[in-house]
Amino acid sequence: MTQRIDGSVADVGEFGLIDRMVAGLPEAALVGPGDDAAVVATPDGRVVVTTDVLVEGVHFRRDWSTPVDVGRKAAAASLADVAAMGATPTALVVGFGAPADTPAAWAVACAAAVQEEAARVGAALVGGDVVSAPVIVLSVTALGDLGGRPAVLRSGARPGDVVAVCGRLGWSAAGFAVLSRGMRKRALVEAHRYPEPDYAAGPRAALAGATSMIDVSDGLVADARHIAKASGVTIDLHAAGWAVPDALAEVAAAFHVDPREWMLGGGEDHALLATFPAATELPLGFTAVGEVRAGEGTEGGAGVLVDGEPWHGPSGHVHFG
Amino acid sequence: MTQRIDGSVADVGEFGLIDRMVAGLPEAALVGPGDDAAVVATPDGRVVVTTDVLVEGVHFRRDWSTPVDVGRKAAAASLADVAAMGATPTALVVGFGAPADTPAAWAVACAAAVQEEAARVGAALVGGDVVSAPVIVLSVTALGDLGGRPAVLRSGARPGDVVAVCGRLGWSAAGFAVLSRGMRKRALVEAHRYPEPDYAAGPRAALAGATSMIDVSDGLVADARHIAKASGVTIDLHAAGWAVPDALAEVAAAFHVDPREWMLGGGEDHALLATFPAATELPLGFTAVGEVRAGEGTEGGAGVLVDGEPWHGPSGHVHFG
Repeated sequence: MTQRIDGSVADVGEFGLIDRMVAGLPEAALVGPGDDAAVVATPDGRVVVTTDVLVEGVHFRRDWSTPVDVGRKAAAASLADVAAMGATPTALVVGFGAPADTPAAWAVACAAAVQEEAARVGAALVGGDVVSAPVIVLSVTALGDLGGRPAVLRSGARPGDVVAVCGRLGWSAAGFAVLSRGMRKRALVEAHRYPEPDYAAGPRAALAGATSMIDVSDGLVADARHIAKASGVTIDLHAAGWAVPDALAEVAAAFHVDPREWMLGGGEDHALLATFPAATELPLGFTAVGEVRAGEGTEGGAGVLVDGEPWHGPSGHVHFG
Repeated sequence: MTQRIDGSVADVGEFGLIDRMVAGLPEAALVGPGDDAAVVATPDGRVVVTTDVLVEGVHFRRDWSTPVDVGRKAAAASLADVAAMGATPTALVVGFGAPADTPAAWAVACAAAVQEEAARVGAALVGGDVVSAPVIVLSVTALGDLGGRPAVLRSGARPGDVVAVCGRLGWSAAGFAVLSRGMRKRALVEAHRYPEPDYAAGPRAALAGATSMIDVSDGLVADARHIAKASGVTIDLHAAGWAVPDALAEVAAAFHVDPREWMLGGGEDHALLATFPAATELPLGFTAVGEVRAGEGTEGGAGVLVDGEPWHGPSGHVHFG
């Protein structure tokens, strides 16, 4: 270490830390850090790989979530990252840490849920590590297969492209609001408890010619910003024209909020956000939500506009907050 | 979940928990749970994958280990598992959890050490996740390439095979003893602070015709027992004839212990234990330490003998202890 690094991990932040922790693009990697997953090419083949860590008290609470919820959520986060590369998830390995007095049934139910979520897309739990830890920690690494295709990166969006989404927007955030106020609204609460990503939509988008793609884990605006930055473009989200699902509209009315705030800012639904050439017939499950414009770094917009204007709503999780 | 699971994770234990958490051999996996790493075959190729988790206060202490020590140790654990399949490590992904007030320099130094350890064998850090956690948690997933060869499993040892080891035995355990009593013995302390596995010895053993192989992470007897059990054989370790390295012999004399106890029971050195047909010229770095005998479950020996007798010394880590 020759470079001096000041401050705490909170000061530097998640993305700053990742930048400083990972140096250069290694030889074996076709795609390195900075996308949803890495692609590794070796004499024996290519593989897509990504890892996510869930920590009790940070990402979930045992009194709010069942072990099944936690297992599904952890698996979904990694599987969706693989799908966002245009790849089909094939296998998972899981690191599981827990206090010694954790009920074994909790661990087993959680692992079964990881396997069930993986099985939804034909992937399997192939290995893992079990260790002692002061709180429950679940690290899920997912592998995926590109079937000979190139990966769909964050950097390929071009001016004129259509911006489209497959999956729910804002449901998890609305579910959190509902839970926080002790309300019941089953579909939303379940959406918060675990996402239901359409993993096959990733390869489907790749085959349809997607120019860029990302898993919406931090929130639509926050993740659109990642594409805008990587592609050197501006993404304009046409929120005024969006159809708002009834479940969101009802709860938003009760809370006196604009449901689009949840749809633009809410994370953890693991929808896929992709861009396609304008003439593309959007693949099954995708709905147009905006367009790609030339130029990056629109003043105050940081690469993303909502109905042509900078957006000042919440725009994603802040880790180490 | 139809099966009822009683007790805590400590009651069930690491291996019992893994058995209950992983069900059946999935389709994509050529080698599933129960070996050092899994092998996944997909249309795009084959890949070896394994994951290990290190937790502050369980696997390391910040007052005893530098971030460089921790990063090297974490990387080595996963890289050695890949090597033990006869594969060459190609890439790592890392999940890093830390309290918000952790110095960013600690995290960056730790990640740099992961990369340096990986670079020793030509592998690279290709991605990761950074999250908030109550203590430092490091999950390292390593990928490896078999170069077209079959993997070397734990289950292939045959009666008459030579048992051989490449790497240090008991150095980490002796280093721990030295540290615990406030002594200085630089080579041993460094061996405890981080192992120096010869990762290339894994593929070398595979090419030489190794019939089984395992990473010695829990201790020689404990890991030999894994091979004995998987292969349905008994492994007899000829400890009486071993040359004891001077560094171990000196410290053992000072502590009035038999250094072979460390060599047989000490973990974390990440030596490779392999079996070869008797006529094999052992590959570079391997030394014969015993032989494979027919029959399993020798009474009281649980598949492993030391100089023909059951061994009652310490035989490996107990997690959730």
